[in-house]
Amino acid sequence: MSTNQRIDGARLWDSLMEMARIGATPKGGVKRLTLTEVDRQGRDTFIQWCEALGLSVRVDSIGNIFARREGRDPARPPVLMGSHLDSQPTGGKFDGALGVIAGLEVMRSLAEHRIETQAPIELVNWTDEEGSRFGRSLMGSGVWAGVYDEAMVNALPDLEGVTVGAALDAIGYRGPHPARPFPADSYFELHIEQGPILEREGAAIGIVTGGQAQVWFDAVITGQDAHAGTTPPSTRRDALVAAARVIARVDALMRERGEDGRGTVGFLQVLPNSCNVVPGEVRFSVEFRHPRTAEIESLAASFPAEAAALVAENGCTLELREKLRFAHQPFDEACIGLVRDAAALLGLAAREIVSGAGHDAVYVARHVPTAMIFTPCKDGLSHNEAESIEPHEAQAGCQVLFEAVVARAGRA
Amino acid sequence: MSTNQRIDGARLWDSLMEMARIGATPKGGVKRLTLTEVDRQGRDTFIQWCEALGLSVRVDSIGNIFARREGRDPARPPVLMGSHLDSQPTGGKFDGALGVIAGLEVMRSLAEHRIETQAPIELVNWTDEEGSRFGRSLMGSGVWAGVYDEAMVNALPDLEGVTVGAALDAIGYRGPHPARPFPADSYFELHIEQGPILEREGAAIGIVTGGQAQVWFDAVITGQDAHAGTTPPSTRRDALVAAARVIARVDALMRERGEDGRGTVGFLQVLPNSCNVVPGEVRFSVEFRHPRTAEIESLAASFPAEAAALVAENGCTLELREKLRFAHQPFDEACIGLVRDAAALLGLAAREIVSGAGHDAVYVARHVPTAMIFTPCKDGLSHNEAESIEPHEAQAGCQVLFEAVVARAGRA
Repeated sequence: MSTNQRIDGARLWDSLMEMARIGATPKGGVKRLTLTEVDRQGRDTFIQWCEALGLSVRVDSIGNIFARREGRDPARPPVLMGSHLDSQPTGGKFDGALGVIAGLEVMRSLAEHRIETQAPIELVNWTDEEGSRFGRSLMGSGVWAGVYDEAMVNALPDLEGVTVGAALDAIGYRGPHPARPFPADSYFELHIEQGPILEREGAAIGIVTGGQAQVWFDAVITGQDAHAGTTPPSTRRDALVAAARVIARVDALMRERGEDGRGTVGFLQVLPNSCNVVPGEVRFSVEFRHPRTAEIESLAASFPAEAAALVAENGCTLELREKLRFAHQPFDEACIGLVRDAAALLGLAAREIVSGAGHDAVYVARHVPTAMIFTPCKDGLSHNEAESIEPHEAQAGCQVLFEAVVARAGRA
Repeated sequence: MSTNQRIDGARLWDSLMEMARIGATPKGGVKRLTLTEVDRQGRDTFIQWCEALGLSVRVDSIGNIFARREGRDPARPPVLMGSHLDSQPTGGKFDGALGVIAGLEVMRSLAEHRIETQAPIELVNWTDEEGSRFGRSLMGSGVWAGVYDEAMVNALPDLEGVTVGAALDAIGYRGPHPARPFPADSYFELHIEQGPILEREGAAIGIVTGGQAQVWFDAVITGQDAHAGTTPPSTRRDALVAAARVIARVDALMRERGEDGRGTVGFLQVLPNSCNVVPGEVRFSVEFRHPRTAEIESLAASFPAEAAALVAENGCTLELREKLRFAHQPFDEACIGLVRDAAALLGLAAREIVSGAGHDAVYVARHVPTAMIFTPCKDGLSHNEAESIEPHEAQAGCQVLFEAVVARAGRA
């Protein structure tokens, strides 16, 4: 049974727009890179909003923020909801922010409608979901879930050599609480789909049944710097020409797997990067994703040798380090059911979907019963300043989150 | 007839090593990027050495330095010799520095042996031969020769946005003299070959008959940023995958032309350059070189359309700007003859060679009778910190420079 109590769509949208002004870019996007001064401003604003509602805020040692609303029954573990406030270098207004600000709107609606719940409810902002500054996405939830060693993560440098630990201290968000799982009832995350499927099929809600399998690599190709004008073809060891062949192969391996295939080189750095020097070194990222774990396992097994062989043909060597691998992560049937029921009771067109993107929910799901709610985004575009959604789409997603969380926490 | 007066090989080597300490890198190379503080230190040291010999130093408006030794006959235009003190980001000790320091050693030997010449002699240090900071190689000689517009060059920014003009002022090397050709008798430049030919054939001296034809492009491929995990193959417009195909094609076009072919992508920048974002933009350099002008003309005509077609197949667009093009530049027969005679008189194994690299001499030759002298370098390696030559190789090249310059200037 739906609560018949509605979240405030206008208030939700206003707060989304206010958050989007922090790190706003000229092209209408957001640049709120994790653990920067801009991220600090976003975090401070978020905490002010939470404390204004009387929520008690705590920060853990990797900077994850938890804002707690007590329940009637102190013995029950909290129902968690949230997402992330950090963005890509040229990101959009809604990737991550929607789930956090919608969770805030749920908290505001609970207060406004004077709703008490049996279980406490906690709203989470996870640190560094994007991974674009330190090269580890899902970093905060990954440390929390024990996927990443916290000491290793603290030592990771950005391109300027600033480490995660130094950045945490610089913005004052290294909290006193340990970054590890605590007893929790469940976790719900609302996020834009970041893909074209819901929009194409006219669905307002994606009932996310799990996250796809992934394998990520860091690659370094070593050849030899040489003069571009004097070095004949026979003596060249051009690391960029070798990298170009690997990039083309990654794209081909994706396309061999059809529309479910994903294969991307998103980061690449050339050394010495001078127009008349044959490049002696190229560093780049490689990632593959697929809904089926078996596809990723076979790629993880075959790609390293295949890429090394390509590179060797150019007289170069390849150093390939597997950075991340995980299997398809199914979500919790009961939690998925609450999302399905809420969409049905609200009369919203919904479909089941596997998450194409990695989300904090995928790591949280290793310890806590989890589900996700997707809403459409224009042209499926994300990680792009042109990322766009409609106010009614945000409102629908937030209402589903409200219904599912209240149902799970139990009305007092 | 050889002068039977010898330059001082030990003094030459000591000064080369002293200059190499300015911007020395841990791997034994040099990083003396043009118009930086390190470049200023190299220039200041060079000028101190020149003034200690009583040479009169002047600096022109693009930072080219001229150190003059008067001749007996004030009516005669000067014989020029020199090269450049700037280096690649990971450059060697001898690329450029050899020609400048050898010219200094010629001046020191003239003083030591109390040799007077009819014509004055001027030693030149050209600004920014490498082009690795502002993207225009042969910049100083190019402005001097009228190849580049001086106002355009002054406005060129480096990757941090510092312009050539600002950098000139910052190190105090924007001189009062106009950067344009003045009456000069001839120009001689000693340089390491930067290629494997002399070493392979056991020749001590390369008699350079000219510079090869070249065409350089700036390329920008525009696709669309998108989420790496959610964007299916059918909707991707990956600018890096498109760039990879162009890089492979540049390499193929080089190899189609055999051992005389040169084709290089040395600089490449990816945007937004985040591991889980499909790249929306890639900027890179493309250059082709060949001893025959006709080969470069045909590449300049065919490559833009061919590259655009490749890129279009990936749903991207290509913006290609031709940055530089010049034909094979023959050097002056009389000046080449003086180099040939000097090598013969000194009993040095010599062979004629076309310069694979661009050199300031190629632009100077448009206005002044010019020749170049090459000496071998280990494994043909240059634009590399491992660049290496032997003291006796430097001494032989310097002695040939001495003989040619004195013969041309005329003993008083």
